[in-house]
Amino acid sequence: MSETIKVMQSHVSVRKYLAEPIPKEHLLEILKSGQGAATSHFVQAYSIIHVTDKEKKDKIAELAKNSHISNASDFFIFCADLKRLEVAGRKHGIVIEHDNLENFMVAIIDTALIAQNVITAAESLGYGGCYIGGVRNNPDPISKLVGLPDKVFPIFGLCLGVPAERNEVKPRLPLDAILHKNQYNTEKYESLLDEYDQTMNTYYQQRSTNNKQTNWTESMAHFMENKRRVHMREFVESKGFHLE
Amino acid sequence: MSETIKVMQSHVSVRKYLAEPIPKEHLLEILKSGQGAATSHFVQAYSIIHVTDKEKKDKIAELAKNSHISNASDFFIFCADLKRLEVAGRKHGIVIEHDNLENFMVAIIDTALIAQNVITAAESLGYGGCYIGGVRNNPDPISKLVGLPDKVFPIFGLCLGVPAERNEVKPRLPLDAILHKNQYNTEKYESLLDEYDQTMNTYYQQRSTNNKQTNWTESMAHFMENKRRVHMREFVESKGFHLE
Repeated sequence: MSETIKVMQSHVSVRKYLAEPIPKEHLLEILKSGQGAATSHFVQAYSIIHVTDKEKKDKIAELAKNSHISNASDFFIFCADLKRLEVAGRKHGIVIEHDNLENFMVAIIDTALIAQNVITAAESLGYGGCYIGGVRNNPDPISKLVGLPDKVFPIFGLCLGVPAERNEVKPRLPLDAILHKNQYNTEKYESLLDEYDQTMNTYYQQRSTNNKQTNWTESMAHFMENKRRVHMREFVESKGFHLE
Repeated sequence: MSETIKVMQSHVSVRKYLAEPIPKEHLLEILKSGQGAATSHFVQAYSIIHVTDKEKKDKIAELAKNSHISNASDFFIFCADLKRLEVAGRKHGIVIEHDNLENFMVAIIDTALIAQNVITAAESLGYGGCYIGGVRNNPDPISKLVGLPDKVFPIFGLCLGVPAERNEVKPRLPLDAILHKNQYNTEKYESLLDEYDQTMNTYYQQRSTNNKQTNWTESMAHFMENKRRVHMREFVESKGFHLE
């Protein structure tokens, strides 16, 4: 197979980093690789905030409830961004009204695509990283801290750095449990999830840190039981995104 | 740099393919590479429909208003999927109520991350591909055609195949126009977008096919002027996603 495939299939979230930062020329290539990702109708509806200010990083770590942010040599906030398109419209006397779910989805998808290239490109150079959904725990103060205007909101953070430790690769769902041929098939879940639960039960018991006695369906059932981040709708609308 | 970085920085959308399909063992590694992507709290909230049935492909091409679908040797529909998690919950007597924007966002992000790995892995083996946002043109009949249950909806399609032709790489926004250091900076857009408009104007005039006289801000202004896919909100809710 290819180096790329090897990199992807050995992805693990890295949460502990050495102090040394990623050299500037590597960062540049990593971010440019991000930009290589496809973007819906070429709108490029994203912005990346590189947070290098120690005080801001610590404050964001506190707000996101995630201490890894403080320790990562490089921390980024990936934002859905329709602001730049507004500026583009204004140059041509056109008022862009971003008032539907389609634009909201496009901005999120575009942002996720660029981010996935960024982390994979970093991994291909030996760095490690971890997405931080926790920026959605307190998106409003975090947005204010980095001065996000209306039409821009943070989707997730990304820590990158030189790995100080690496976990084992976590087994994914059997491919058959996510892949359907021509027709979606709910029937097969019962047996495939049983099979996967056994795999994950063994994994959780045997992994080198944070052992536990559970399986996938059990941990998902408890995780999904409660509504999470119920403030998101109001927050997103407060940033000028309308979900009609 | 790395092979991965080279692959990403030379990404182009490929829309014409040779008839030969991607060998099964390659497809397997490509899809497994997709699964390597990070997933929010390990929910793996996605499904992929591999559409191999010629009649279905043609029908989807018509509904998505995109003929490339018919011609691609391999066509996939990437779906946000909370159904499998519902099944997981039921195994443990827990009713999962997916009724907020956070879960909707998580499912979209998860799906975009896996898709971006899939296309990049394919490209690393010499294949080419193209995202098809057009599945959102008629998401309801397309969903019915491949039997998507409630809690599952199509986000985009992906064509893959052996490239019959390759376009030039399209210049992206200057990195400075998407990257902000510690603080979002709207001020810099005016001059950076002028610079980019010049780059894109030259690109559109000189590229080998589909030459035109325009630039980025102008084409964006006209593209974003009108509301698009206004049915998305109602459709998404009809699939049991609540955006509260």
